[in-house]
Amino acid sequence: MSDRPQIDPPYLLFLGDARDALAAKTARGVFVFRPEWCLGQLRLPGCKPRLDLPEMTVEEAAAKGAKCLIVGVANAGGVVSDSWTATLVAALEAGLDVASGLHVRLSDLPAVRDAAEANGRHLFDVRHPSQEFKVGTGIRRAGKRLLTVGTDASVGKMYATLALEAEWRRRGVPCTFRATGQTGIFVAGRGVSVDAVVADFISGATEWLTPENDPDHWDLVEGQGSLHHPSYAGVTLGLIHGAQPDAIVVCHEPTRTNMRGLPDWPLPELDACIEANLQAARLTNPDVVCAGICVNTEALAEAEAEALLAELGTAHGLPCVDPIRTGVGPIADRVI
Amino acid sequence: MSDRPQIDPPYLLFLGDARDALAAKTARGVFVFRPEWCLGQLRLPGCKPRLDLPEMTVEEAAAKGAKCLIVGVANAGGVVSDSWTATLVAALEAGLDVASGLHVRLSDLPAVRDAAEANGRHLFDVRHPSQEFKVGTGIRRAGKRLLTVGTDASVGKMYATLALEAEWRRRGVPCTFRATGQTGIFVAGRGVSVDAVVADFISGATEWLTPENDPDHWDLVEGQGSLHHPSYAGVTLGLIHGAQPDAIVVCHEPTRTNMRGLPDWPLPELDACIEANLQAARLTNPDVVCAGICVNTEALAEAEAEALLAELGTAHGLPCVDPIRTGVGPIADRVI
Repeated sequence: MSDRPQIDPPYLLFLGDARDALAAKTARGVFVFRPEWCLGQLRLPGCKPRLDLPEMTVEEAAAKGAKCLIVGVANAGGVVSDSWTATLVAALEAGLDVASGLHVRLSDLPAVRDAAEANGRHLFDVRHPSQEFKVGTGIRRAGKRLLTVGTDASVGKMYATLALEAEWRRRGVPCTFRATGQTGIFVAGRGVSVDAVVADFISGATEWLTPENDPDHWDLVEGQGSLHHPSYAGVTLGLIHGAQPDAIVVCHEPTRTNMRGLPDWPLPELDACIEANLQAARLTNPDVVCAGICVNTEALAEAEAEALLAELGTAHGLPCVDPIRTGVGPIADRVI
Repeated sequence: MSDRPQIDPPYLLFLGDARDALAAKTARGVFVFRPEWCLGQLRLPGCKPRLDLPEMTVEEAAAKGAKCLIVGVANAGGVVSDSWTATLVAALEAGLDVASGLHVRLSDLPAVRDAAEANGRHLFDVRHPSQEFKVGTGIRRAGKRLLTVGTDASVGKMYATLALEAEWRRRGVPCTFRATGQTGIFVAGRGVSVDAVVADFISGATEWLTPENDPDHWDLVEGQGSLHHPSYAGVTLGLIHGAQPDAIVVCHEPTRTNMRGLPDWPLPELDACIEANLQAARLTNPDVVCAGICVNTEALAEAEAEALLAELGTAHGLPCVDPIRTGVGPIADRVI
């Protein structure tokens, strides 16, 4: 695949009538990691969260050069309200493409589909891969790859991967962030929502996403799920095998008391998690190493966070960082 | 899910213009394991393989009570020829349903779709699950479950599972064969082609397929792929987690020199394979055991086969059988 974005920036971020920050976390993620791609935000009446971006209509955004409206908000109950539809249609009529990570397909909304056709614009349903993938082959490819994995789902793998990308770039190391989930795809302008591909093609889609490259080029691959999460481990394993990582980075959220969505399910020990992921990864890359641990310490006080990072680093003999608080320099030092 | 077949027998097996036995292996599998459901075969001009069943037209089959035509043949190049289409339309007009495991959907063939609608008949595209699944929960369910796993894909997991079902039934132990692939679904009249579900729902679909049951009831679950196959391991892991097996049976083909479809890829050692599968299964059932080894010794002479089974049984301390040659009695002795 080419490194060119398939979804053209700059973006107008649509926050809809989001009731809280969580509902708009996709828009926030895009803004945090690609502020230079974000021209403005469009908030409907009743929208609570707000980004540090100019508010604008679709017409204003189009006049400023916006190429795509990003639906950066979750729709409650899976329903797209009439007020959303009107905004999406207006965006298409103003000459913007529309990209969405909603479960419902834009192309299944008649008014939106018709407006896209009438105006010759693209609809991107990033949760619904439209490519045909092949099954994985396991064949080794040139270039280097790093994959983030986790003790649980939703522990900051995307943030960690993007922090690694920023560090790699700062050091002038050629790299590409490879997005595997909806927010990541908006941030990269391309990618594959691997949990939405047909099960037979998980590793094949990942091989397609992380193709052969220059020997010194790094693909920094956003992980999904967790080998220890009984809902999603199949996705995680296919992603590991397809990425054939030279290095994994384990992500962890220290205040989490149970696996996401499963009240009675404990998190794995970090040691066991690292070993299980390395064992799985050795199938397609026998030389894989664990390059470090990324801990999301947002819920901890500064001193507590520092102590925890030091303790985990010593216990596991690995660089242990918080991508936001400390940066990922020590991981880059170790692996590049 | 109910135990009632969704695809109603008895069947007329359609072999098309199959060029060799491999092309008709689905039809053969259905006939071997459900001869009582198979009224006849329909072979087009040029068809090479032949089953030990009466040849009949769709009208003759309908007159004898056939309820469904099973497309038990692979279509070369993915194309459905006009002669096939004419037969499928004739079957629908004669009052039969049509079930297919082809990659192409019956419902995407206009003449077939129209004939089904006009005659009020069902089309079953078993490779394309039509249900909506939920993500897996990992919650323990009553009832017992056995899952077949393998050193590779296509090493006889379906045959082994059906042999276990026959043995369980012979001993009067309540059980249900749970089909996860196309031939198995025709044999069971229901099931889920797990490699065709969306990746997020592999374990959830498996939980749906193997629901809570009486404490002494066994679900005998057909495995797919292999944890050691880089193309399909994600499917295998989701299936393991969703089935939460009390027992696994490892299937093996001793003459295989490389993983299926991957010329340079060695098979795992049996020891490593057993341990990796047990480790994965412990996530949703900490008490899982390995109940035995099923070896496909078809390619070996009698004495050679006997020696190999004895050797592997001793080496691994497990019942080691060939489901066809020796039966699976020793596994039933151990696990029931």
